[in-house]
Amino acid sequence: MNESSTRVEAFSDGVFAIAITLLILEIRVPHGGPGGLWRELLSLWPSYIAFLMSFFVILIEWVNHHELLRMVRGVNYPFMFANGLLLLLVTFIPFPTAVLAANLATPDAKAAVAFYCATFAVNALPWNLLFHTIVRGGLLRAEVSPTVVRNIRRTYYVAMFVYLLATALAFVQPALALAFNASLWIVFIRLGYRSESSVSARS
Amino acid sequence: MNESSTRVEAFSDGVFAIAITLLILEIRVPHGGPGGLWRELLSLWPSYIAFLMSFFVILIEWVNHHELLRMVRGVNYPFMFANGLLLLLVTFIPFPTAVLAANLATPDAKAAVAFYCATFAVNALPWNLLFHTIVRGGLLRAEVSPTVVRNIRRTYYVAMFVYLLATALAFVQPALALAFNASLWIVFIRLGYRSESSVSARS
Amino acid sequence: MNESSTRVEAFSDGVFAIAITLLILEIRVPHGGPGGLWRELLSLWPSYIAFLMSFFVILIEWVNHHELLRMVRGVNYPFMFANGLLLLLVTFIPFPTAVLAANLATPDAKAAVAFYCATFAVNALPWNLLFHTIVRGGLLRAEVSPTVVRNIRRTYYVAMFVYLLATALAFVQPALALAFNASLWIVFIRLGYRSESSVSARS
Amino acid sequence: MNESSTRVEAFSDGVFAIAITLLILEIRVPHGGPGGLWRELLSLWPSYIAFLMSFFVILIEWVNHHELLRMVRGVNYPFMFANGLLLLLVTFIPFPTAVLAANLATPDAKAAVAFYCATFAVNALPWNLLFHTIVRGGLLRAEVSPTVVRNIRRTYYVAMFVYLLATALAFVQPALALAFNASLWIVFIRLGYRSESSVSARS
Repeated sequence: MNESSTRVEAFSDGVFAIAITLLILEIRVPHGGPGGLWRELLSLWPSYIAFLMSFFVILIEWVNHHELLRMVRGVNYPFMFANGLLLLLVTFIPFPTAVLAANLATPDAKAAVAFYCATFAVNALPWNLLFHTIVRGGLLRAEVSPTVVRNIRRTYYVAMFVYLLATALAFVQPALALAFNASLWIVFIRLGYRSESSVSARS
Repeated sequence: MNESSTRVEAFSDGVFAIAITLLILEIRVPHGGPGGLWRELLSLWPSYIAFLMSFFVILIEWVNHHELLRMVRGVNYPFMFANGLLLLLVTFIPFPTAVLAANLATPDAKAAVAFYCATFAVNALPWNLLFHTIVRGGLLRAEVSPTVVRNIRRTYYVAMFVYLLATALAFVQPALALAFNASLWIVFIRLGYRSESSVSARS
Repeated sequence: MNESSTRVEAFSDGVFAIAITLLILEIRVPHGGPGGLWRELLSLWPSYIAFLMSFFVILIEWVNHHELLRMVRGVNYPFMFANGLLLLLVTFIPFPTAVLAANLATPDAKAAVAFYCATFAVNALPWNLLFHTIVRGGLLRAEVSPTVVRNIRRTYYVAMFVYLLATALAFVQPALALAFNASLWIVFIRLGYRSESSVSARS
Repeated sequence: MNESSTRVEAFSDGVFAIAITLLILEIRVPHGGPGGLWRELLSLWPSYIAFLMSFFVILIEWVNHHELLRMVRGVNYPFMFANGLLLLLVTFIPFPTAVLAANLATPDAKAAVAFYCATFAVNALPWNLLFHTIVRGGLLRAEVSPTVVRNIRRTYYVAMFVYLLATALAFVQPALALAFNASLWIVFIRLGYRSESSVSARS
């Protein structure tokens, strides 16, 4: 009844690859004003920060998506829509990134960082939904232990909580909120490692 | 004489993935005007509606494309052009989406919604043509029953009719027309389910 | 010594899919001026013509690329660069398309059409080079008859000649030159058919 | 423990394909000013140079990535992040390209060329890191000789040195610096050849 995940992976890889590559389009090209091109390039620092942060988040989300699908022995119809919701949030990322880049050096920095962090709190929902769909649909490989399932679930909840905290923090200390936000990269990178150690390689 | 559909799928997946990811580029980034960034972000509601509607339509079209190709045992030369016409309509979607986003909160809302709905009425034509090409070329797998073929055909005709109705309705009640338009998502999601239950999985 | 063409196909499919999907970004979104949204939408006819023409050209080029690679039993290192030159011309197409759209309804129409047609005359060069690389590298499958090779070569030369004629014609009759340009679609669609009939399917 | 590189290749191919296709979006479309469309098209020469240079660089980087992954018998978790850093630099390329195009014909040409060349000096770092990750993780196929490993490593160091030289040269002779930069294409094209001759084909 389940089919292989090949085409879902191809479509998802496409969306991740495009979203991550579109980020650069948000950096406006300076034309070398009175202060010279170097000064103009330096003044774009909010764009560089926004670009780097979102690049790493999308990269890590792609790696996690890749790790998750290695734990799966096939996909079903609900999977495709749960995965679609996840991709919705991924394609949305360039927008809060651009909002962050445009407002980080302005009095609206707090609102921009809060909006940016809130996006990832919402982003955690489809990850939960996708994992729930996988477990409920019996799509997990037999080798995946209940401990791994529990770990992944807990990490998703912790992530959502940390993103909500970062959103609240943004109204007080936007720079700290961004650092908080980035700290989750390590959690997610380690999550991947853990699931790898308990899943045998496929082909 | 027929060849496998691998590369046609890869090309189509690419087009679907890019079209769905480009939608976000149409949301203009606010720079935090006098009312503050939050007010600016809220005032973008027409863009969010247009983005969400088109995201789900493209996602559902991709899922249907995926389901359709699972029913096929190979592709032929006419298939590639019928599929190309379908992709033409898919790549066009970002334009009526942007028209909708730019005009939904203006006196031109009726025209914008009518144009948006009309696009999908036209979009139904290449779906019909592609399915016709598949059936006539003998590309369907043996397991696909005549009932499924009849169901799919009927759904395509119903869809075109509903989209035309939504287009007409847009001149009177644009909000209702958009809701009408979205109601087809359920029809198409259920169409996919039905064809799945009667097609055995391919490895 | 030759390797399979899988990854070259994936990369090429990506470039074709992106180039064909980016075309829509060149259609500027009207905001419903004094004459109403419908008049604004109608006034975009040069953009629609440019979009449709380039969509079909890229689609046909993709189909031909697909047919060509079916005739090949592997790729070598020079193939990747000859193919890269071909992709260079494909990624360039959105630019003359945008030039055509922006100038077709202006006194510069002749220059815009000439520039558009000249692009495809130049485009014919890497097709010749790629085919030459394939033949010289001994990459053709054994089943491909010398007649097919001669036919393909002749068609490429005829195409370049017709594109040059269309370019010259553009300075006198731009509309006719565009029609001339489009007439080549039929030649290329038929070229694919011919090669298919003489190449056995690959699984 | 290592898995096949299929999905990493698909994601990387997507990023390379999108980055190379987005370059054309940076060429602004002229609307035929008082001097006529041809003069406008000619005045875009800095854009054409920037487009061509970056197209060939990304093409060559893709070919090298392709050659490198042919030498690998699988990927591990660190590989995915080292590869991600490499893709970060690839997605960044459209930005220095646009800066180059916008400033090559202005008094800021020296800064623009220096910034462009410096990007590729930095770009050499993740190539080194990726190769280091491959060698240290024992991911190289058994057939790859120590001589090839040494050659690749040396070429990467030479490349970084030449890019740094080109960056310094840009402050004096920007045109020469660009030529210097392009001269590395030949080094990288030959690098690929060499590794091919010592790696047997896969599949």
